[in-house]
Amino acid sequence: MIVEASVPLKLTLFGEHAVVYGRPAIAYTISEYLKIRIKESERFYVTSNTLELTGVKVDLHEYKVENENVKRVLAYITETINYFGAEKKVSIDIESPVDPSVGLGTSAGVVVGMVSAYSTLLGHKLSREQIAKISHEIELRVQGLASIMDTHTETFGGFILVKKGGKEVEKLDANMNFSSGYFRRIATTADMLKRVKKLKESKPQLFESVLNVIEQVTTEAKNAIAKNDEDELGELMYINHGLLFSIGITVPVIDQIVSTARIAGVKGCKVSGGGGGGAVVCTKSEQAEFLIKAMGGKLINANPSFNGVMIKLI
Amino acid sequence: MIVEASVPLKLTLFGEHAVVYGRPAIAYTISEYLKIRIKESERFYVTSNTLELTGVKVDLHEYKVENENVKRVLAYITETINYFGAEKKVSIDIESPVDPSVGLGTSAGVVVGMVSAYSTLLGHKLSREQIAKISHEIELRVQGLASIMDTHTETFGGFILVKKGGKEVEKLDANMNFSSGYFRRIATTADMLKRVKKLKESKPQLFESVLNVIEQVTTEAKNAIAKNDEDELGELMYINHGLLFSIGITVPVIDQIVSTARIAGVKGCKVSGGGGGGAVVCTKSEQAEFLIKAMGGKLINANPSFNGVMIKLI
Repeated sequence: MIVEASVPLKLTLFGEHAVVYGRPAIAYTISEYLKIRIKESERFYVTSNTLELTGVKVDLHEYKVENENVKRVLAYITETINYFGAEKKVSIDIESPVDPSVGLGTSAGVVVGMVSAYSTLLGHKLSREQIAKISHEIELRVQGLASIMDTHTETFGGFILVKKGGKEVEKLDANMNFSSGYFRRIATTADMLKRVKKLKESKPQLFESVLNVIEQVTTEAKNAIAKNDEDELGELMYINHGLLFSIGITVPVIDQIVSTARIAGVKGCKVSGGGGGGAVVCTKSEQAEFLIKAMGGKLINANPSFNGVMIKLI
Repeated sequence: MIVEASVPLKLTLFGEHAVVYGRPAIAYTISEYLKIRIKESERFYVTSNTLELTGVKVDLHEYKVENENVKRVLAYITETINYFGAEKKVSIDIESPVDPSVGLGTSAGVVVGMVSAYSTLLGHKLSREQIAKISHEIELRVQGLASIMDTHTETFGGFILVKKGGKEVEKLDANMNFSSGYFRRIATTADMLKRVKKLKESKPQLFESVLNVIEQVTTEAKNAIAKNDEDELGELMYINHGLLFSIGITVPVIDQIVSTARIAGVKGCKVSGGGGGGAVVCTKSEQAEFLIKAMGGKLINANPSFNGVMIKLI
């Protein structure tokens, strides 16, 4: 028997970076799925079509890797297995539709998928609340610091508000459509987090004020989503982009797309996620998709999905 | 006798748009001069190499123009003449080193130059305070609404802080160097003012918060200037640019220059003035000048000047 977990990837709409400092944020799951397939095996093995593990079969007892990205993915996997007492040896296959570390939540996807699939294989019946909680705990163990945003959004699916304080999420009743794509990053999320932290340290008051504005934008965005008001939401996306420019996490190619989209009449557009490259998200529009492609980005299916993580026994 | 007024043009460093709402702003005079030459004449005449009056000789008693820009320039001139009771008929020649309406203060330059030159011709000896005050009054009569920034900066010269409330200026002791150029505008200052006002009306609290941040940035910039700290000033320029992006007054070409300059290591860069195109100002750097030229901008001599308006009798 193979247990397959399909985890929807996610885009951040509002509050990235601010969420690290306890401010609210809004994310939603897209129609791109990371798949984790596990089955019992004589040894622990990991294979993947992607996540920079292409064609590699890694023995979890004897691995030695230099690549930080691969190390992290393997760390999520071993932490999950250890969390459940490594009760059964499994071989794990990871299939991702997108490159890792572009702000679409592939890391959280690996964790949520592993927790869902491995617990199912062991015969546990976890609720979504439990999956989200355990996944976040494992992220914390590996990363030291993590927002609940990605794990909770991908577990529950749909539009998710991370409430102020960062301890709770709220499902938003919404169905809006977006266009999105991503670019190679010129800096990692870790670098971007450091840069933002440096700004916080050198200009604490100013930084606090910018966070306050981002929080206001997120709050108004929540209302715009409730009213299904795309014009309003779009304008808030541009405002949020400017604030993310201010704190230094945008890059020229994405600034150019967002700025050009605005002139072209696209209702809203912004960088999404950690920045330093990565994803851009706009209100659904052909022009936005054209711009993203023309600038060398990889388009993704950004239509919202609402199921959250799904388990299938094959 | 010809009376020639040389008026230094200006760049806004911090607080554009916010100054319209009573927030502080910082501007400085550059090393480009608008020249107004007047002499007694049998009729009132205006000629100009620029300001869209090239090769035209306009009789101030009988003009009829469709061009809004030319109308405004002529309005500044006739208001100035009327302010002084039209005591002497003069012919006026205007020579500008830059295109009008690109955020470099050419309008204020015409007023300050006219007030200085015409009053001198009439034998008045006005103090700089009087020139600035009268010039602002004339701007108000023509525009209905005007900040004291441009007229006062160009009258006094150097680095000028418009204090909170917008009623007073303070000379800042500074000598920093900048690179700058300008682009054709795709919208007028009036359009941009309207757009910002619309944002204020639709999102009053959020707008107020953004103005608060811009004010904080201006205040910190004042300190950075006092310490001659170019790194600090530059970072504040980027932050201010992001905030101006948020309120919707930037355009793709300038966003691209600013964003690329940042990645290239230029200490600071931002849109300057009303936006919708117009001027960009960066900390002095060859890369910034290269970028401005490469993107099709017209470089200007942005080295600071300190004299303010100067009068010469020829």
